[in-house]
Amino acid sequence: MQSRKKVMSLESMNPMVKETKLPIADHLAQRAEELQQDLKQGGKGRPYSEIMKCHTGDICSMGQKPNTFIQQVAAICAYPELLKSASMPEDVKQRAQGILQGVDGFSIGGYNLRYIDYSVPEKIAKFIERRDGGIPSNPRNIIGCHGVNLCIMNVMDLVTTKEPLKTGVLVPVPHCPVYTNALVLADAIKVPYQLDEGNDWALNLQELRQALQEGRKHCNPKILCIINPSNPTGQVQSRKCIEDVIRFAAEEGLLLFADEVLQDLVFGAGYNFHSFKKVLFEMGPKYSSTVQLISCFSFSQGFIGENGLSAGYIEYVNIDPLVMDCTVNKVTSGHPSVLGQIVVDILMTPPLPKDPSYHSFMEEKQRAKEFLAENARLTEEMFRQIPGIYCSPIRGSMYAFPRIDIPEKAVRQAQEQGMEPDVFFCYKLLEETGVFLAAGSTFGQDEGTYHFRLTLLPPKEKLKSVLQSIRDFQKKFFEEYS
Amino acid sequence: MQSRKKVMSLESMNPMVKETKLPIADHLAQRAEELQQDLKQGGKGRPYSEIMKCHTGDICSMGQKPNTFIQQVAAICAYPELLKSASMPEDVKQRAQGILQGVDGFSIGGYNLRYIDYSVPEKIAKFIERRDGGIPSNPRNIIGCHGVNLCIMNVMDLVTTKEPLKTGVLVPVPHCPVYTNALVLADAIKVPYQLDEGNDWALNLQELRQALQEGRKHCNPKILCIINPSNPTGQVQSRKCIEDVIRFAAEEGLLLFADEVLQDLVFGAGYNFHSFKKVLFEMGPKYSSTVQLISCFSFSQGFIGENGLSAGYIEYVNIDPLVMDCTVNKVTSGHPSVLGQIVVDILMTPPLPKDPSYHSFMEEKQRAKEFLAENARLTEEMFRQIPGIYCSPIRGSMYAFPRIDIPEKAVRQAQEQGMEPDVFFCYKLLEETGVFLAAGSTFGQDEGTYHFRLTLLPPKEKLKSVLQSIRDFQKKFFEEYS
Repeated sequence: MQSRKKVMSLESMNPMVKETKLPIADHLAQRAEELQQDLKQGGKGRPYSEIMKCHTGDICSMGQKPNTFIQQVAAICAYPELLKSASMPEDVKQRAQGILQGVDGFSIGGYNLRYIDYSVPEKIAKFIERRDGGIPSNPRNIIGCHGVNLCIMNVMDLVTTKEPLKTGVLVPVPHCPVYTNALVLADAIKVPYQLDEGNDWALNLQELRQALQEGRKHCNPKILCIINPSNPTGQVQSRKCIEDVIRFAAEEGLLLFADEVLQDLVFGAGYNFHSFKKVLFEMGPKYSSTVQLISCFSFSQGFIGENGLSAGYIEYVNIDPLVMDCTVNKVTSGHPSVLGQIVVDILMTPPLPKDPSYHSFMEEKQRAKEFLAENARLTEEMFRQIPGIYCSPIRGSMYAFPRIDIPEKAVRQAQEQGMEPDVFFCYKLLEETGVFLAAGSTFGQDEGTYHFRLTLLPPKEKLKSVLQSIRDFQKKFFEEYS
Repeated sequence: MQSRKKVMSLESMNPMVKETKLPIADHLAQRAEELQQDLKQGGKGRPYSEIMKCHTGDICSMGQKPNTFIQQVAAICAYPELLKSASMPEDVKQRAQGILQGVDGFSIGGYNLRYIDYSVPEKIAKFIERRDGGIPSNPRNIIGCHGVNLCIMNVMDLVTTKEPLKTGVLVPVPHCPVYTNALVLADAIKVPYQLDEGNDWALNLQELRQALQEGRKHCNPKILCIINPSNPTGQVQSRKCIEDVIRFAAEEGLLLFADEVLQDLVFGAGYNFHSFKKVLFEMGPKYSSTVQLISCFSFSQGFIGENGLSAGYIEYVNIDPLVMDCTVNKVTSGHPSVLGQIVVDILMTPPLPKDPSYHSFMEEKQRAKEFLAENARLTEEMFRQIPGIYCSPIRGSMYAFPRIDIPEKAVRQAQEQGMEPDVFFCYKLLEETGVFLAAGSTFGQDEGTYHFRLTLLPPKEKLKSVLQSIRDFQKKFFEEYS
């Protein structure tokens, strides 16, 4: 019995799962955690007193206030006795009362499948129709979900087949690591297409076409993923580009997966968010009745930044409802939390001008967007002044993704230590300044180029100090390794 | 372009996903929904005014009050301004304050990975040590999760390999449908072992051994799943049986997956919950250092019944931490919601005797358990009086799973309509009485036997009326089809 191989060990485990990586380079995260613990114990003379977690888009950990209306409604839903509280605004109470009347037993504690599967999708459909200028949306095509990561994984699972060739998925470079993991787990093949950094990270159709041709040599590409606004590049796609992509998908028989998680965060002058759904329908029935589209929205990274509440939805276009049932099935194996769907509910039907909470709600929303726009300007300006750092204009999202020069000597030293050169850069930066960035290699990048991702979420003064730290470190780094 | 096959269609989709079924027979659920809508519009002279959803274990939809302390702490965590509220008890505020101090930005809206990955597991480990009489538990071996369904799927994914034979998983019959789906999706093979209905649904080791031998003919059985207390049978395993199962797993080199979700719900006289972890360690190092064990606990079906909050955890024993990292990775692709983990936090460290909320917390907990025990007695008694219905003693859980006779004529008619005979029975019952039960075939049953699952959660008077409806219907059904 002792000599038997263990069922669950690194040798015996599913090789597909083993291949996945933790989101955002784990070595950096581990070191950041160690440093933070060290700082708590005094920090032994380090020149910084806190770790600035600029590697991720976590609004709350950056000290920003979440949206009050949402918090208030959520609190009452969690503890309905608060309906009697004199300190809660009347429209907050009315909203919470309405939600509670629609859930089982006047409590968010139930499974509440009717609320999740019917009531919330109806509100989402109305929101989508308003957003898209009246183009119809059918609640039957909408599924609420626990964050978008699981959605991506479910969609990949749905379309993946292995005969005669494995399924290929076109993914932009750079992209969120969640795509990499979802593809590995689904045993699908990543077919990367490079975004055009020289053209402010625009999607280049020629590049896409080449990638597809290349992919067809070794797999069966079925899905084209687009992230708009782009995480991590901050690019926002033009309407023309979206039309081109739709035409391309139609010609090539690809399903479009539009990751529109950051749709609320567009602030570049002259830039607007165009949903793939809207553009598709405005292109007429030749496209709108044939092209399969899946688009998703999550509120973890929108203006409210309630990452921890895991609230999102996904809409299907031109997909057989019976296929949807299988998706529902997969998704319901991990029902979204009821509170998460309540947040979706609130956001789909925000306070109206007549409601007492309207002004504060809109003001908080507007302020969050202006704040990001201002931080984006600040970041661009600062990077423009640093030799060796090149930042494209940031039109949306909550990230900057500048390219950095890394001297040959530093590249060699990184390689000797078994690190990507940009991880090496971020590691040293973290160690010396406490600023924690995400390395570009986590997102993918053209060979021989190096980047990092910086979140735009720190309060202005903190962001300034982060940018100065990066500037000073970069200078020193260059001197050391040149 | 028009003639191209769609990427996502019933023909082209992943056959594994297509094979999965919705949890709990969907036809019945759909009909129940239609009837409910019909009742809302007057019901056209139906002899009932509501659908009694006795098919599932949803405490809230049965009109029971969720736990006040948990609701209060959750509400403050959702809206920290409530810390100033005079109407909240002092210890509730202290508890919420403590939780908020441990999360990023004093808000549940952040990703809060430190809280989820370190703080809560530390409290869970202490809880497990208390529960198991001091046997050590390492927080590093614990992962908080969004309900247990996703956990089961992740574990199956982790161990599944396909060469030279597909992975087999021993699953008790009857069992929750979630196991079926998880195995289908992981492309693993279900190896069913029949629980011994003649012996109050006890686990029969001889039966288990035979199933394993049978399974080895066509797959590579690696995991043995045990559900204790059992959903749906209401059986609670004896310590002796658990020891036998551990010895069996050791001899046969199987990993034990102990679904201990219902551990709080044991009320049969002379019956106690014994965790597999505790028994394993009390059997000495020969077993405790070799047998791989995964056990899980969820609070969706415990005494608080907060299904909608999706809170649970999973503990690994004798498994390489590096394998765990891959699990964390999979699980974090769908981070559990922060509020769900706050519920775990609260339950792991309930109020102490000195706290003002202690008495009401304990009283609510005790009342929930006594309520179930009483409903179990009521159910057993009533079924004992109905010819053609046979109910084993219910020692725990929140379900009864009686066997029913179905006359030959009804079996034939069901088959003509393409229904399982027990689904046919439940369908007719639903139609005529408004009582919605889950058919035994959803859980698996010995060939030629028929069952249904009834939740014990309705308030006593409602449960009485449900049981009477079943009795009257059964009599009529027999007369009609005999």
